[in-house]
Amino acid sequence: MTNLYAMKKYLDSLCLSDIGHTNAKIWKDGKVEIVPLKNFSPEKWREKIYYINVNQTIQPKLKNLSNWIDISTKIRVNTDYRTLGIDRKVVIYRSQNEIVVDLGSAITIDIIKNGDHLGGYILLGKEATIKTFKEKTPHLNFQNDGLGNFKSIPNSSENALYFGFFAPIINLVKSLKESYSLKVILTGGDSQEFANLLDFTVILKPNLIFENMRMVVKNSFKD
Amino acid sequence: MTNLYAMKKYLDSLCLSDIGHTNAKIWKDGKVEIVPLKNFSPEKWREKIYYINVNQTIQPKLKNLSNWIDISTKIRVNTDYRTLGIDRKVVIYRSQNEIVVDLGSAITIDIIKNGDHLGGYILLGKEATIKTFKEKTPHLNFQNDGLGNFKSIPNSSENALYFGFFAPIINLVKSLKESYSLKVILTGGDSQEFANLLDFTVILKPNLIFENMRMVVKNSFKD
Repeated sequence: MTNLYAMKKYLDSLCLSDIGHTNAKIWKDGKVEIVPLKNFSPEKWREKIYYINVNQTIQPKLKNLSNWIDISTKIRVNTDYRTLGIDRKVVIYRSQNEIVVDLGSAITIDIIKNGDHLGGYILLGKEATIKTFKEKTPHLNFQNDGLGNFKSIPNSSENALYFGFFAPIINLVKSLKESYSLKVILTGGDSQEFANLLDFTVILKPNLIFENMRMVVKNSFKD
Repeated sequence: MTNLYAMKKYLDSLCLSDIGHTNAKIWKDGKVEIVPLKNFSPEKWREKIYYINVNQTIQPKLKNLSNWIDISTKIRVNTDYRTLGIDRKVVIYRSQNEIVVDLGSAITIDIIKNGDHLGGYILLGKEATIKTFKEKTPHLNFQNDGLGNFKSIPNSSENALYFGFFAPIINLVKSLKESYSLKVILTGGDSQEFANLLDFTVILKPNLIFENMRMVVKNSFKD
């Protein structure tokens, strides 16, 4: 009991970071801080930080900071997929039979069956899509007008953009779920919004990446 | 016979233009010329040109040119959709029971049942999607490696991007086709590529917008 309590306390106290192409996310005391990369100075952090990073530009700097500990080498995934990003490896780290949909700056959809990663998809995220539409067609708003749902056909430009983004993704996820008889886990910043649009059951874990990073640290860094 | 021949000759000789947010397309003698908007000077054309235009910036200039004839007021569509673009009205002009997928700078999907337009979707087109990915993740290539199809799960970053773009759209179109028991018409610059990926029958009409514009002129401008 004491050991379990100590372990929990240790895991709760961990400082974790997930560095992407847009932001660095820092997990500390159960809260996530999102730092745009242009404002991100890893040397400012004095505590020990376990991290993953997909951004090659910043990697040399991190390698030179002894309190930043790269956990990527500790993560193994059974896959034939070439060049699977470390962030995707972490979100599927504990998956055995699941579709994991990570709705962040990009959207990734990964399919794991009987412990094997079968592959997956990469799509533009919501923010990038809205930004691109704003540049091309500034007079059109990306917005759910509240009158539709993903099964009704949009009857306004707002809904045409909003469900034009979400409906194809929902249809793909639903089709994969049915074809492979798998449950669906949603994670990432837009996961709650996506979940609200669905007519099938999903498991919502907005901070799955940090939950799994804690497990990696627990299993691999018993110091 | 003579009248039909004369009509065909007249229609074949028409000069038509479809002006969007990215390009102006000019149809002449059965060929399409695509002019980027920054190079587009409508006053250079001396012949009579029947046009549609969704670009508000350029509209005053066109209104002042007597050889540029706006055909938009001649087009009627039965719809409750607010702010349906004139280009979308033209591609569905002759549709009675169809899903019309226009794969251009943007992708629009419109559903017409028993002569009524039920609504539709607007998605980012392929070029805009590739461009946005190139800015965010320049190390990833959007490319069909030839080893997959839309029903197999991508096993490389190239295919993950390529089918991450196409598979959700295919799933939506397929689901709409089955739900509404409609045939699918594909048009626009990326329609041939899209058609090649499908496992269901579609009708491919790359220049549907100009075919329909000819019909509008034939029906409305008998001079």
